[in-house]
Amino acid sequence: MHNQRIVLARRPVGEPTPQDFRLETVETPAPARGEVLVRTQFLSLDPYMRGRMNTTKSYAPPVELGDIMVGGTVGEIVESNDGGFSPGDIVLANGGWQQYTVCNARELRKLDPRRFPPTYALGVLGMPGQTAYCALLDIGAPKRGETLVVSAASGAVGSVAGQIGKIFGCRVIGIAGTDDKCTYVVQELGFDASINRRTQDLDEALADTCPDGIDIYYDNTAGAILEAVLRRINLGARIPLVGLIEHYNATQAPHGPFLAPLLTQRAKIEGFLVTDHAAHVARFLGDMHDWLAKGQVRYREDIVDGLENAPRAFIGLLRGENFGKLLVRVG
Amino acid sequence: MHNQRIVLARRPVGEPTPQDFRLETVETPAPARGEVLVRTQFLSLDPYMRGRMNTTKSYAPPVELGDIMVGGTVGEIVESNDGGFSPGDIVLANGGWQQYTVCNARELRKLDPRRFPPTYALGVLGMPGQTAYCALLDIGAPKRGETLVVSAASGAVGSVAGQIGKIFGCRVIGIAGTDDKCTYVVQELGFDASINRRTQDLDEALADTCPDGIDIYYDNTAGAILEAVLRRINLGARIPLVGLIEHYNATQAPHGPFLAPLLTQRAKIEGFLVTDHAAHVARFLGDMHDWLAKGQVRYREDIVDGLENAPRAFIGLLRGENFGKLLVRVG
Repeated sequence: MHNQRIVLARRPVGEPTPQDFRLETVETPAPARGEVLVRTQFLSLDPYMRGRMNTTKSYAPPVELGDIMVGGTVGEIVESNDGGFSPGDIVLANGGWQQYTVCNARELRKLDPRRFPPTYALGVLGMPGQTAYCALLDIGAPKRGETLVVSAASGAVGSVAGQIGKIFGCRVIGIAGTDDKCTYVVQELGFDASINRRTQDLDEALADTCPDGIDIYYDNTAGAILEAVLRRINLGARIPLVGLIEHYNATQAPHGPFLAPLLTQRAKIEGFLVTDHAAHVARFLGDMHDWLAKGQVRYREDIVDGLENAPRAFIGLLRGENFGKLLVRVG
Repeated sequence: MHNQRIVLARRPVGEPTPQDFRLETVETPAPARGEVLVRTQFLSLDPYMRGRMNTTKSYAPPVELGDIMVGGTVGEIVESNDGGFSPGDIVLANGGWQQYTVCNARELRKLDPRRFPPTYALGVLGMPGQTAYCALLDIGAPKRGETLVVSAASGAVGSVAGQIGKIFGCRVIGIAGTDDKCTYVVQELGFDASINRRTQDLDEALADTCPDGIDIYYDNTAGAILEAVLRRINLGARIPLVGLIEHYNATQAPHGPFLAPLLTQRAKIEGFLVTDHAAHVARFLGDMHDWLAKGQVRYREDIVDGLENAPRAFIGLLRGENFGKLLVRVG
């Protein structure tokens, strides 16, 4: 069967360009015993993928030149050589940037499309949602009445982190890159205030919106936002460091923030990676199903049509051009 | 009674100079009811004092211009209007940079000079020792076989932190500023290795001395050492941030380290201030008395004679010119 896929053509220097990716057509092998053939319906695009395009040592190996770009997918079983799956089943897979994938059945999770859209498994009910949940609750440890600031606040992770902060009784301030996103997090998601990081002075805006200082900063970006937040943290503040979006396209090792406020305020910055928290997935899914059902967590997807448009959509993601969880409709 | 004292004459810009201090002679008031008159024998000089010379917001108010420089002291009661103290008693006080001080008796701790030299209450059995103990054990959480790196390793705090690390079974690497100090921490204090931060390449030296990576970094300095350490931290590394010696004389807000390794390694940096840990003082003193008695912790003092020499000694402390806990013999 013909399979279109996108491979890493060359390693980007700085911001990726379309020429760093290559669309190929190859033959899909038949699934062996215990394997299934999945037709990808949706591909998730996430900022972490930029790290996989570099050879820098990280928590996961890089994508090799000529190899398929990695990514979470939702798809339909086309052919099954495993007793647990039948054609027509909808599954969560790590199919990568391609139309068809042959997977070991043990790597799949069957999705129930009756309760929530299957694509939620790539976002609010998946890795981004669990990242929001575990980093906020385990490192951020929110308490009623505290002030929580969230960067990349309208994105797949930040939007959920902020809403969980509201559920736990925090005053929540979202930082985003457009006025539309700022309006959205306040009016649609119930944040208390928002800051447009491109048009507002961060120090002034944080002083205005966080008159009692900042107890938790859910950091998806690092960079200038982290520096400004540090200047206003309270005693014992907690900063889960979840993403470094401001630095993903850096061409040389950037500077970081001056850490004196950590000492003065006896605060902490702690790195987070969701794969360490697999043991919490049942608790996360239980809570999140409940919150979604009650409307306490709202969720927005930004869907781009066509696998061939994945590179441009991904480049836009790193620029903050998406609005909500970015997905590619592959089917 | 005539009292010589040193006040803050002007706020330093960058490195302090002798002209930032002024030696004055004033009259000492008589102690009121509940107060005692203490003749200072030893004044402790510590890096935190540099922060008090600035107006920058910090965990403690600044010293005002014309006010006496703050500091911990050991002295002898000369006159007492409190039933708990008698002339001749040796006490720990916050007497500041002066010969005589009138204190409320409740602010004093009586010292027993029979067991250890009273000056130990300004170092290994005092604030610096407890800083070493609590920050290493509570934030560093050392485990047998782990690698601990300590900066300012021959100083009052670092030397104790490293020796406690050895007691808890860590491999300990000390970073210091002279070959003599490097030899001392290995040969006298039992560290496993040392690095001269002025003459060695930090990345190479850390690679050589920490072949299994770094699990705990006891950070007294921040700056370039922290950056180099971050490049070699292990999964789940803990970094108690205890001092910022490299930055105390900074004239503008410095940059900090790039924090990507915190994310990659799910590590944390946490600020520490000993005054938060007053509840642990009994546990600390119990352990430290025991370790000193058994010779498991060794301790070195660097004593400068004469109050008038305190400013130059303090300026030298910030340059790393002392060797061991810096004290001024005032008496």
